[in-house]
Amino acid sequence: MNEFELIDLVLSTLGETVTGDAIVLGPGDDAAAVQVPSGNLLVSSIDSLLSGVHFPADAAPELIGYRALMVSLSDLAAMGATASHVLVSLTLDAADPEWVRGLALGMREAALSAGVKIAGGNISRGSVAIHVSVHGYAPQATLLRRAGASAGDTVYVTGMLGGAAAALAAGRLDVAPAQLDPLSERYFKPTARLAEGVALRGHASSAMDVSDGLLQDLGHLSSASQVMISIDSALIPVFPGASIDQALNGGDDYELLFTAAAPPPELGVRVTRIGEVRAGSGVLLDKAPVTASGYLHF
Amino acid sequence: MNEFELIDLVLSTLGETVTGDAIVLGPGDDAAAVQVPSGNLLVSSIDSLLSGVHFPADAAPELIGYRALMVSLSDLAAMGATASHVLVSLTLDAADPEWVRGLALGMREAALSAGVKIAGGNISRGSVAIHVSVHGYAPQATLLRRAGASAGDTVYVTGMLGGAAAALAAGRLDVAPAQLDPLSERYFKPTARLAEGVALRGHASSAMDVSDGLLQDLGHLSSASQVMISIDSALIPVFPGASIDQALNGGDDYELLFTAAAPPPELGVRVTRIGEVRAGSGVLLDKAPVTASGYLHF
Repeated sequence: MNEFELIDLVLSTLGETVTGDAIVLGPGDDAAAVQVPSGNLLVSSIDSLLSGVHFPADAAPELIGYRALMVSLSDLAAMGATASHVLVSLTLDAADPEWVRGLALGMREAALSAGVKIAGGNISRGSVAIHVSVHGYAPQATLLRRAGASAGDTVYVTGMLGGAAAALAAGRLDVAPAQLDPLSERYFKPTARLAEGVALRGHASSAMDVSDGLLQDLGHLSSASQVMISIDSALIPVFPGASIDQALNGGDDYELLFTAAAPPPELGVRVTRIGEVRAGSGVLLDKAPVTASGYLHF
Repeated sequence: MNEFELIDLVLSTLGETVTGDAIVLGPGDDAAAVQVPSGNLLVSSIDSLLSGVHFPADAAPELIGYRALMVSLSDLAAMGATASHVLVSLTLDAADPEWVRGLALGMREAALSAGVKIAGGNISRGSVAIHVSVHGYAPQATLLRRAGASAGDTVYVTGMLGGAAAALAAGRLDVAPAQLDPLSERYFKPTARLAEGVALRGHASSAMDVSDGLLQDLGHLSSASQVMISIDSALIPVFPGASIDQALNGGDDYELLFTAAAPPPELGVRVTRIGEVRAGSGVLLDKAPVTASGYLHF
């Protein structure tokens, strides 16, 4: 199969997820064209998932594809943005139609679940990697940012942490899509907290997603907001089967971390108070300063 | 240097190209946020440039960075869109600050030249590659597309073709940024024909950029428009120092290929009539059917 045949295979597998709704022109031209709702900012991010770094090379392609889309969409959730469409740049080391079809099936499932379109992309030959740019909308006045936390705010996190790291540590990532257990599901099937991010507009003083690991991400939030963040390990919602260390440092959870001056509205998912914002800088865990130990690429 | 230090280096090198104008929120948060002009479609594409495939691994990083941005922006030009901002996903095999700074300098130069902002991105460790998503705007009524050519239209191309392929064939790509000759400049410093694409709104019946090679791209245009395209090799504007084969099959030119029912307006660059659109299918070169021989990844 040459790249054009691979693209045809991907498009036929993606089916209705490549067009419709706001997509005036989907894949097949030099660029996609999309109708934009008025009165909003365009919110955009680009993320990369490399084989052997961000996912195991031998994982099921359906799971890799699902996760790639959801992980990338999580950045929109962190801004309180809706999700409109994504573009996918795919590099493959071989033209393996079954693998590519599996990947596209997983992306299709994630796109349907998140309500986004896959409006364009490209395929080249190289080390296996998936780069996804994600696009959505948010009103400027209530855009969620990492900056904005104030002394006196409370720190919250959605869901439970550490499950993905526990799955990785337990070597449970070579599963078939139909055989996910609760831990491997946490790794491969994160849910971008898009509805929760939108619900937090006007309520959260700052927000981001937990991708690098809670402590490292708290460090980013405290730097951006120029505050101290103090959390209590006893309050951390640890995913069943995960350790407190995995919940604090594991990453890959894609839950929302946010601060608010008042209790947040009902989000439809578990929301846990894990600490508070103080004047100062850095992160305190059980009153002691911490140095984050999340994943570093270099 | 870890990835956060590398990101700081990139951002300080990019300087004023990461924010301002429509960019409400540039790099540093989970996503960028951008003001969108009303009454337009958002036009978006994603492109990939892999070391050893799309550019020589030992090329000067300034040139790689410049070319990566311009090549990607060319897809917006092909749609008749303006260019607003780009996102860059970068994978590096080592944290080499000098190389990364050079790459960012080249991207900065291209961004200033094209009038776009580099609103976000990310860095991971992997095989060297640059993935760029590009975003701009165009009114729906005059969006340029590959579909739309009609029998009787004339086929045009901007600029001259084959120079980039001639540079590649002549092994002239290991040059320093200050020592470009006309051929290597054609390879490393293409100009996205953005102003020309905008000027063709309402005039061109179909358009695309010449990236894979003229004959292969004519094949895409004829398929999308469901027409036959007949060109005359004697009319092709061959870049000085290039062969007719390089002009026909070489790719990497990033000129605009378009059809129009009437002579186009003055574009400020050379525009050459190279053939005509007929009823039927496929591409004729000097009256003989051709099979495209552009670059295939697989």
